[in-house]
Amino acid sequence: MKRLPKTFGCPVELSVQVLGGKWKPVILARLKDGPLRYGELRRLIPQISDKVLTERLADLQQAGLVERDADGGGGYGLSMRGASLRPVLQSLYDWGTAQAGEMGAVIRAGR
Amino acid sequence: MKRLPKTFGCPVELSVQVLGGKWKPVILARLKDGPLRYGELRRLIPQISDKVLTERLADLQQAGLVERDADGGGGYGLSMRGASLRPVLQSLYDWGTAQAGEMGAVIRAGR
Repeated sequence: MKRLPKTFGCPVELSVQVLGGKWKPVILARLKDGPLRYGELRRLIPQISDKVLTERLADLQQAGLVERDADGGGGYGLSMRGASLRPVLQSLYDWGTAQAGEMGAVIRAGR
Repeated sequence: MKRLPKTFGCPVELSVQVLGGKWKPVILARLKDGPLRYGELRRLIPQISDKVLTERLADLQQAGLVERDADGGGGYGLSMRGASLRPVLQSLYDWGTAQAGEMGAVIRAGR
């Protein structure tokens, strides 16, 4: 597991550093309901390029949040540590859902 | 309120776009417990520059998440919409707190 021997001003700063960036929370949220193969992730997040998806999956594995699926299927799934993010991912999902209408944003039907 | 007439692949993408960046969730988390004056925010988040704190507070006001304190104190506080982020901010706080020890990170005593 990657260590961050660093001082943070508050716990939220640490969380944001680990989760930071545009795509990591989106990828993790997709894996929240179960492991997915690379091609499935690619299809569910079509705006992400292959290069960026590959890089972010490597980042997430290095951070100990995502593991290759152990059953030999070759997919990606949340590690135990990644699973501890469920409350964060769920609250981001719920807030986005509630705000979409209010903000005039459209969420494409997914999954 | 700023509108995002845009299509998102999932609700988490919308949330990340609104909250995105290193400092917005940190500022919002500091305001979660009540309004603060600019100087108090500055002291609680010493790593942020004046330029960036001023810009992020403007962004957060434009997004309708933060309001100037109505009691004339001149501070900043969460709007109703900002307050709807409490579950997100709390889950980020809780996860950061739980992970700090495991990751060898130190959270400075604050507030």
